Parts: sequence; C-alpha cells; structure tokens
Amino acid sequence: KKIVTLAGDGIGPEIMSAGLEVLAALAPKIDFDYEIDPKNFGGAAIDADGHPLPETTLNAAKNADAILLAAIGGPQYNDAPVRPEQGLLSLRKALGLFANIRPVQIFDALKHLSPLKPEIIDGVDFVVVRELTGGIYFGEHTLNERTARDVNDYSYEEIERIIKVAFEIAEKRGKKVTSVDKQNVLATSKLWRIVAEDVAKSYPHVALEHALVDSLAMKMITNPSDFDVIVTENLFGDILSDESSVLPGTLGVMPSASHAANGPSLYEPIHGSAPDIAGLGIANPISMILSVAMMLRESFGETIGAQYIENAVNKTLLDGILTKDLGGKASLKEMTAAIISNL
Amino acid sequence: KKIVTLAGDGIGPEIMSAGLEVLAALAPKIDFDYEIDPKNFGGAAIDADGHPLPETTLNAAKNADAILLAAIGGPQYNDAPVRPEQGLLSLRKALGLFANIRPVQIFDALKHLSPLKPEIIDGVDFVVVRELTGGIYFGEHTLNERTARDVNDYSYEEIERIIKVAFEIAEKRGKKVTSVDKQNVLATSKLWRIVAEDVAKSYPHVALEHALVDSLAMKMITNPSDFDVIVTENLFGDILSDESSVLPGTLGVMPSASHAANGPSLYEPIHGSAPDIAGLGIANPISMILSVAMMLRESFGETIGAQYIENAVNKTLLDGILTKDLGGKASLKEMTAAIISNL
Ligand SMILES: CC(C)[C@H](C(=O)O)[C@@H](O)C(=O)O
Ligand SMILES: CC(C)[C@H](C(=O)O)[C@@H](O)C(=O)O
Repeated sequence: KKIVTLAGDGIGPEIMSAGLEVLAALAPKIDFDYEIDPKNFGGAAIDADGHPLPETTLNAAKNADAILLAAIGGPQYNDAPVRPEQGLLSLRKALGLFANIRPVQIFDALKHLSPLKPEIIDGVDFVVVRELTGGIYFGEHTLNERTARDVNDYSYEEIERIIKVAFEIAEKRGKKVTSVDKQNVLATSKLWRIVAEDVAKSYPHVALEHALVDSLAMKMITNPSDFDVIVTENLFGDILSDESSVLPGTLGVMPSASHAANGPSLYEPIHGSAPDIAGLGIANPISMILSVAMMLRESFGETIGAQYIENAVNKTLLDGILTKDLGGKASLKEMTAAIISNL
Repeated sequence: KKIVTLAGDGIGPEIMSAGLEVLAALAPKIDFDYEIDPKNFGGAAIDADGHPLPETTLNAAKNADAILLAAIGGPQYNDAPVRPEQGLLSLRKALGLFANIRPVQIFDALKHLSPLKPEIIDGVDFVVVRELTGGIYFGEHTLNERTARDVNDYSYEEIERIIKVAFEIAEKRGKKVTSVDKQNVLATSKLWRIVAEDVAKSYPHVALEHALVDSLAMKMITNPSDFDVIVTENLFGDILSDESSVLPGTLGVMPSASHAANGPSLYEPIHGSAPDIAGLGIANPISMILSVAMMLRESFGETIGAQYIENAVNKTLLDGILTKDLGGKASLKEMTAAIISNL
C-alpha cells in the first residue's frame, strides 16, 4: 500500500510523525504492509518549489493508495502569489475528492471541555457530509475594482453522488439523513432538495429530513444529538462542519476523510497548522492519529486496526494523558507514546 | 407618526396586538402621537389578495414613518405559487432595507436557558449587522432540469454602506468591528475585505478585525463575549445571525431592525410564525415588544420610551413572569399586562 504523506506547515510535520509512529507500531499487529512517500505541500512546497501543489506532489498523490495530510498555511504566506490553501483546493479538484466526511463524537474523558451544557452534549454522535468539489468554490470568480461576482453552479449528478454517500453512511448508522439547503432562496438549493428526494427513494430504510441552513445553524447547538448524518453543499458545509467541530470542545481530536468516485482518498485533521505552537512539541496529535485510523478503515478495510487505534486513544484520554489544549501537560511525544503503549 | 403594522401569520396577530398594547400604554407617558395602519402581508395577504405583498401594503409601507412586522409563513403556504417569504424579500428590496441589525444580549433572568455554559455566556453583548438587499439572494437564479445556478454580486457601494453602518454602531458601543468573509475563496469576499479596510480609515477609534465565516461560526459559540459588532454579507448574515440567536437560549426575546438609506425602517421579532401554537394565547410577545422599543429609539429618537419598555421587560422577567417557552406558565395576555404594569 502506497501512502503519500503531506506534512505541510506549522505543527504539520510533528503531528504527521506522531501519526506515522502509531501506524508503524500497529502495522505488525495487523499484518499491514505499507510504504510511505512524503511530499511537499502547502507553504512548505511554496518554500521549496515555488508552488503549494507541485507537479511531483500531485503525481504521487494520484498514484497513491491513500493520502495523509497534516496541516497547511501560516502568516508568512498571506501575501504569496498563490497561497497554501489554493494548493488544497487544487488537490481536491484534481483528485475529484467530492465527499468530505467529518464524524462528530464526544469522548467521555473530554466532555467537560464542550462549551455546551452536559445535558445537551450527551449522546452527540453524527457525521457531516460536505460536497467538496462543486458550488461557489469552483464557479467563476470575478474581481473588478468596483464590483465582484461569484457563481454557484450545481448539477444533478454532482448533488446525486454526494447525497448517495450520505445515505450509504446513514444506512450503516442511525438511518437518518438531514439534508441542508436554502431552498426558499437559492436555485441550487431547489435542485438539491429535488435530488435528495429522488435519491431517498432508493433507501427506504433511511429517513430523510430537510432543513434550511439558517435553522440548522441553530439546531446544531440547541439539539445536536438529534442528528445522524447531515449532508450539504460546499459552502454551507464549510460553515456547518466548522460549527459542528466546537461541540467536543477541542479541534484536537477530530479527523476527516475526503473521498473520490475513483482513486485515493485523503485523510486529515480538521484543525489548522497552529503556527503559534509549531515546533514546541506540545501539539495534540490525536486528530492526525485518528485520521490514520480512518484511513485504515475506509481505504484499506482494516476495521480492526482502526478500532485498535481508536480504543488506544480513548484509553489514553481516560488515563488522563492530556496535551495542553486538553487541559493537561503531556507533550506530543508523551501522548504519542501513551497511545502506542495502549494499542 | 404613521406606523404600518404587518401582523402576518401564525402567532403574528397575537404578538402584534401585545406590542401595540404596550405602545398604547406607553405613548401618553412620553407624549408620543402616532397612528396605526394595519395591512395584509405574507400568508394572510395570499389568502386575502392572492399575493404576499399586495400593492396597497407596499404603498402604505413606502409612505409610513416606520413599519412593524410580526411574523409570516405557515405549512399551508408551502405550495403557494408565490410563498410568504417572497413577500418579505420583495419588501426588503422595494424599501431598500439594506441594513439588518440584530442585538444579541442575555437577560439575567434567562441566563440558565442558554445551551452554553454560564461562564461562556456571561457578558455576551454584541450586534450582528447583516447586508440585506444584495448578494446571492438577489442575483440571477436559474433552475433547469439537470443544473442550477445562483449568482452572487456585490458592488463597492453596497459593501461600503453596510460596513459604515457597522462602524457607526461600534463607535457608540465597544469600538470593535468584526468583518466576516470567505476571502480565501470568494471574489466578493476579497472586495468585501478591501472595502472594510477603506471604511476603517474614517473610524480611527474603532478597531477592525477580519474573520473567515467558518472560523466565526466556531468563535460565536466558543468566545461569544469577544464580539462587539459583527458585520457580514447577506447569506453569511442569515446563517450567523440565526446561529447567534441560540445564545440567549430562546428566540422569544430578540428584536431586530432593518434600515434603508432613506425611508422607513422595519422592526420585527427574529423568530417565525410558530403555527403550532398560533391562537393558543401562549406565545411569548417579548421579541415583538422589544421591536417596538427599537422602533421608538431608532426611528423616532424616543430613547427614554425605549428604555421604559426595556426596563419593564427586564423587571417582568426578573419577577418570574415567564411564558411557556421560557419555562413558565404565564399566558401572552398575562405577560403583556405585567410588562405594561412595570412600565
Ligand atoms: C482553506 C479553505 C479554502 C478550506 C475550505 O474552505 O474548504 C478550509 O476552510 C476547509 O474547510 O477545509
Ligand atoms: C425567510 C427567509 C427568506 C429569510 C432570509 O433568509 O433572509 C429569513 O431566514 C430571515 O433571515 O429573515
């Protein structure tokens, strides 16, 4: 199995190392053979090659069996002609990574970190499915001196495939899909709702409900345990998936996956490159380590290996091994070592 | 002073009556002369005239000194050829109501209702300023069988006038503006940020910070007391202002104002028409009553009258007179009477 790793910027390299250490420790236990191919990406690639997504990186990614990305970006690239984020958008598009999956789940040991009251956060366990290669992100962008325009396009097929992903996931979970749109205003949302209804017909065991994006932004905070699978378009998904990530009280424990119709998937922490703590050895590696677990399960069918990692993380947290962001004093190395010893 | 009232649908008529009762009780105390001109709007207007914004309503609104709107919409209009919401969008556009103002404030007596922990909700007091007549709401909408398109347009002038509103408000408050965009993706957001910087130069005593919409959706929950004035474009504002409205733990106490460059302003509760409790006499009238207070202050310069109402509401809540949505048993009539007696 060829795994391309994109360590990127800020804390990226540190947490990537942690993730790979865990993978290396686990591999013999589950008889998993793999090969790591590290490539430049983001700001690091701008520094090395003048572009956030160099040709060699893109080619390696295309030929990989899976891609691990740590984090990109930093203040030093704010005025770069092509910014690190542009590399990420291009990579998503080039690999056709249309389905972004973000599980939202509350670790017992971290419940107290949530900004929400315990009675609201109890039992929260849902997945946000975000369309990632269409919509206003990839429509025409026109910036003139006195006017600007962005165009939001969606086709039936683009909507259909992401809604299907949501139903497939819901079928293996709580059997409920909440489709989010702004149907009372947007044409793309009217189409979205039609397609959602069409797709639902093929999943008689999964309930479909519709919600307006403004109303969902409220319910995500007032009733987060009502959800099973939330599916939405690219821009709404950007906002809502980030909103959902406040529920656990820390971004440091949340992995994500992005899938294509064909070809490799990409796995990454949902948090950024945290330039302020880069190199200090205090970053929390859990999102990255759980991204490795997601990769094992979703790209390689290694369900047991994924479970080993997830259990080890859970046990480590229950043991009170916590990095600074979680209210503890463990270093990145200490936490990684603890997780490995709990494998 | 001519006040056009649009009672609308669901609980609309009940809460409008409550608001007008309070106004009638207050008027002699502050020597405020006015005249009420009730007009059909929303679903009620569809029933009566076949259209949510009849000509006579629009004309009356245009010639008013201020407009009070209660709430519109209901399930019976879901398949209407022109839906109630369309009337609202047309009214906003026809009156040029480009500046939507939503104060977010926590009543001491209701603090415990917030889904957020007390230490997070303490001291929250900010205003969301939403651009209301531009952007993707009013761009071209194209719905074909297999594709759909929405167009997001903003001009320098449209952005400039709303950013100015935000700075004007901030200058009288905490002297900080948080401008929200998606500058790393959208052309309209790039223009937005340029204009925000330009406008800021005329307000040397107000600090300007920029935030990406995804990041703001998180901070609004994790650090809501950091904000003073948040300003954003129409669609982001729709989502973020609704998200902000979960902070007090009830939509029932939140008023809003919408202003034009010239002509009358419109005042309305931020909540909907609650068809499920319409006619039961248990709706919470406070949002409507506080909308009346906002009208007195912002359209008629009646600062003291506004303060009387706000103090009376506060006292009533502290006295434990609470409607069902606030955890109490008071009816709409009881609560209204209590507020009036506290004036
Ligand atoms: C970096 C940015 C372009 C990106 C996005 O908006 O998609 C990020 O916010 C994300 O959600 O992965
Ligand atoms: C009814 C709807 C069109 C409207 C909007 O999206 O502007 C509403 O959500 C609001 O915020 O006033």
